[in-house]
Amino acid sequence: MEGYWLFLALLVSALLVGFLSVIFTLVWVLHYREGLGWDGTQLEFNWHPVLLVTGLVFIQGIAIIVYRLPWTWKCSKLLMKSIHAGLNAVAAILAIIALVAVFDNHNVSGIPNMYSLHSWVGLTAVICYLLQLVSGFVVFLLPWAPLSLRAFLMPIHVYSGLVIFGTVIATVLMGVTEKLIFGLRAPASYSTFPPEGVFANSLGLLILVFGALIFWIVTRPQWKRPKEPNSTLLQPNGGTAEGVRGSMAANSGYNMDKSDSELNNEVAARKRNFALDEAGQRSTM
Amino acid sequence: MEGYWLFLALLVSALLVGFLSVIFTLVWVLHYREGLGWDGTQLEFNWHPVLLVTGLVFIQGIAIIVYRLPWTWKCSKLLMKSIHAGLNAVAAILAIIALVAVFDNHNVSGIPNMYSLHSWVGLTAVICYLLQLVSGFVVFLLPWAPLSLRAFLMPIHVYSGLVIFGTVIATVLMGVTEKLIFGLRAPASYSTFPPEGVFANSLGLLILVFGALIFWIVTRPQWKRPKEPNSTLLQPNGGTAEGVRGSMAANSGYNMDKSDSELNNEVAARKRNFALDEAGQRSTM
Repeated sequence: MEGYWLFLALLVSALLVGFLSVIFTLVWVLHYREGLGWDGTQLEFNWHPVLLVTGLVFIQGIAIIVYRLPWTWKCSKLLMKSIHAGLNAVAAILAIIALVAVFDNHNVSGIPNMYSLHSWVGLTAVICYLLQLVSGFVVFLLPWAPLSLRAFLMPIHVYSGLVIFGTVIATVLMGVTEKLIFGLRAPASYSTFPPEGVFANSLGLLILVFGALIFWIVTRPQWKRPKEPNSTLLQPNGGTAEGVRGSMAANSGYNMDKSDSELNNEVAARKRNFALDEAGQRSTM
Repeated sequence: MEGYWLFLALLVSALLVGFLSVIFTLVWVLHYREGLGWDGTQLEFNWHPVLLVTGLVFIQGIAIIVYRLPWTWKCSKLLMKSIHAGLNAVAAILAIIALVAVFDNHNVSGIPNMYSLHSWVGLTAVICYLLQLVSGFVVFLLPWAPLSLRAFLMPIHVYSGLVIFGTVIATVLMGVTEKLIFGLRAPASYSTFPPEGVFANSLGLLILVFGALIFWIVTRPQWKRPKEPNSTLLQPNGGTAEGVRGSMAANSGYNMDKSDSELNNEVAARKRNFALDEAGQRSTM
């Protein structure tokens, strides 16, 4: 792997910053707030940030870069897809529980639901995340989707994943802002720089840095999982020709970082891309 | 251009949504708030959202995709770089005025500065934006930077640009949230779904959609500005060999969407990338 030590340094940094974000969120609710519980009160609300930072931020971030871990490149694509889907499924379950917690708490406390920009964007992000999970499972993990559909959906899947991840981070930052304004009251209101405000602001910065690290790791072409040599023979994916085809499509030229960088002009680029795609399809049949 | 009509549809959508975002911000401050002025009061504060949505959101978004407009592909790279830098410079000036407006207003009104996550992230984003602008000008627009430096900095420049753009959008969403919580008071507080709250929430969604459209347009490899054929002979960039070299580097294999997708394994990918980079350098000398 090109730039292995830089990759390792960034991966360790991302894991550290992501883990710290989860710890900071826990410290926030356990030390500065009332703690955790499931009784409709603030204790139940507090599961909302803990589960979302754990699931939709940290676990989703890891799921996004899981294909790029060079130690997994000898594992089958099917296994890696299952891990990617599994991590996202865990994050989705945590997100749903987190939503139940906040709706429960609002209903018990008589606080209206869905009035804030945080709630509008957040709910939209979770719905898109679930759609992405289901469509990804049906199209890329199950063996029945035709190559053309996989090839068509792959760049949309990659793009949507990153947009949802970015949107989740923006939503968390809005959530931190809301909670600090509503939760900190005079004389220790947000504008007086109370320790809780500074602490939660730092949590916001950590989450932003985590997102930036994941985005760097996932957009470096040299750290992309290489295509398996002789993938028609070696790659198990449901044991069918379709499965192998799709597995190739997911790793083929139909990707966000497909490039015509080595080509001299647009016409040549187009011709060559067609040729590559055709070759990619042929090699899997 | 491959997928010309889709590109056109997305470009028109982005322009429309971006323009609507600016209009919504103006309507917000002129209709729902006190209007605009420069007297230290809320009137001066109101320039803050107007200038930032106009500059750091709309104009920066256009600057990001300006190389991808196919009608500009016959223009020289130097002209396009100047337009890219010029748009970003305008956005930077608007951002600085926007910061002056909010600090002025806070100081006059006795509101503390820099306590919120919005301000921490926002000021960091503006500082990074200015550093990006200056370093981009010195390295990519002025003719003196060596090819190796340009090649090294290009992927960082592209990556930073997108991270700053995303961070700006997150900051705007936090700003909208803050303003609505602080600005809307009982009985028409934010949680009672007042028209201003719903309107400003919609502004937040528009800005998010604008960001998503720009991100799609800028990450499609088939919509990338093609390398000029015979660029050593045809491409003016300060009239020096260094300039031409840099111009090539900016459009060469050192890009976010460089890919090894057509290669069979990691070793081959590495070898080929070296060969390409070498060829790219040779072709411009």
